[in-house]
Amino acid sequence: MSLLVTGSIGIDTVETPSGIAEDILGGSSIYFSYAASFFGPVRFVGVVGEDCPADFLKPLDDNPNIDMAGLEIRKGSKTFRWHGKYHEDINQRDTLNVELNVLGEAGPTIPDQFRDSQVVFLANTHPALQAEILGQLVGPQLVVADTMDLWINTERESLMALLGKIDGLVLNDSEAQLLTGQADVVTAGLEIAKMVRGFVVVKKGEHGSLLFSDGRVFAYPAWPSTKVVDPTGAGDSFAGAMMGYLAAEDRSDVDAQRRAIAYGTVTASFALEDFSLNRFFQIGRDDIDARLAEFKKLTEF
Amino acid sequence: MSLLVTGSIGIDTVETPSGIAEDILGGSSIYFSYAASFFGPVRFVGVVGEDCPADFLKPLDDNPNIDMAGLEIRKGSKTFRWHGKYHEDINQRDTLNVELNVLGEAGPTIPDQFRDSQVVFLANTHPALQAEILGQLVGPQLVVADTMDLWINTERESLMALLGKIDGLVLNDSEAQLLTGQADVVTAGLEIAKMVRGFVVVKKGEHGSLLFSDGRVFAYPAWPSTKVVDPTGAGDSFAGAMMGYLAAEDRSDVDAQRRAIAYGTVTASFALEDFSLNRFFQIGRDDIDARLAEFKKLTEF
Repeated sequence: MSLLVTGSIGIDTVETPSGIAEDILGGSSIYFSYAASFFGPVRFVGVVGEDCPADFLKPLDDNPNIDMAGLEIRKGSKTFRWHGKYHEDINQRDTLNVELNVLGEAGPTIPDQFRDSQVVFLANTHPALQAEILGQLVGPQLVVADTMDLWINTERESLMALLGKIDGLVLNDSEAQLLTGQADVVTAGLEIAKMVRGFVVVKKGEHGSLLFSDGRVFAYPAWPSTKVVDPTGAGDSFAGAMMGYLAAEDRSDVDAQRRAIAYGTVTASFALEDFSLNRFFQIGRDDIDARLAEFKKLTEF
Repeated sequence: MSLLVTGSIGIDTVETPSGIAEDILGGSSIYFSYAASFFGPVRFVGVVGEDCPADFLKPLDDNPNIDMAGLEIRKGSKTFRWHGKYHEDINQRDTLNVELNVLGEAGPTIPDQFRDSQVVFLANTHPALQAEILGQLVGPQLVVADTMDLWINTERESLMALLGKIDGLVLNDSEAQLLTGQADVVTAGLEIAKMVRGFVVVKKGEHGSLLFSDGRVFAYPAWPSTKVVDPTGAGDSFAGAMMGYLAAEDRSDVDAQRRAIAYGTVTASFALEDFSLNRFFQIGRDDIDARLAEFKKLTEF
């Protein structure tokens, strides 16, 4: 099935215990689409400003599985920028600077040739904007969204309206707790699963993830990484591989979801081994499949 | 192989969001031995004071798989007492009161008929005392110990000496970080695995566990519980089932360890569904096996 993603494109500056990387390619749709491209074609929709360097998106332009027809270079606007610093404990980070720029303006327009997309991922942005983008599509079969604490706190009504229209939601453990008021993540996930038509994935970072689907709970550890260079984009890479797999397999039943999340786990584990998309440039689907086989071994008993 | 455990016996008062239970049966050796008894015979070694009510240990006395020949009722001494309160977030707790009493005195004596025990679990206590108990045994084949932050901080030399003499160590993630100074738990576990002859299990509570063995890392999620009444003793129940399985199977290779940890995971998940040993009184090995089969299903992909 055809897969469409829309989300942020960012010029990131990232500080981690491993070093500093300035003005690097980032944003949710970037990590998502590159991760998804290992599994099949991806239709990309996003907006940058005039300030975006001409070759900034070259890795995506050069990727034969990514269709960049949905990229808008908006005149008079500036590209979204984010500057974050990770602590010695890499699970903690501070945002040092954020410039919404074009992300604070009108959303992107879906090109006509993308409107029939069957699988859609609405990466994190204002839930009203996610709904507006969804409204531009004609009969999508599988719509999955991401969200964040900001919208849960400030736009709960829009978010709840969106949840009623989607087939899956991906969010962090702290966001699941915030959305439901439940301290226990399993209880929170089960509650959220009742708010959407389909499934819920709760990401727990280094502690793995939980899938709530079909009235059941499935649990995954994380890939036991020892070389985390930059965790930025790991969650988006997770979602990209998950959705890329589902679109490529043309399935969205529970067993497909279970395998999709395992693919998400191992694909994300590559992303955090270097800054930006750098680690992805060095690997192919065979590396992901090899790590999936190893992940299977280290979780079986 | 014959399994021996030595550790604490406590008169616990536990407050959790589910309620308060006063003067209940607790302590590491209690949870450990009862969990292990689902798999085979256990030799119990521990000390209480004169104040211990006559029927306090009746559930263990009545369990045909637990040999209480190593129980000492010490004249003039008082039983260890602990009073803890769990937060609304059940992963957080405060110790409101602790009376070491007999635990602060000389350790237990291993009865002659227990000295040939082949599998030994040294539940958490002063590492010099653990070494002293180990010295009373004749040629054990598999010795595994638990420890805690207190000894890592105050008795590092004794602890390091003990680590050189054992085949396995079980500890929490925060303890693994403290022992190595490594913020990353996987890196910490790999370092600790070099300090012992055999394997290391890092317990992460609701986030599962990691096994470091044979130069490899194995990862387990927790059983996705929604009805945590009292987490006290879950870690000891985990270790009890793990060691009980290894002793019963007469194996300690990596594959046996992997399965042992899965058994530890599901057995511990029963323990926390009620106060003290209460949930264990309602179940049998068949319930543990059924949950293991379900755990296998919800972790496979």
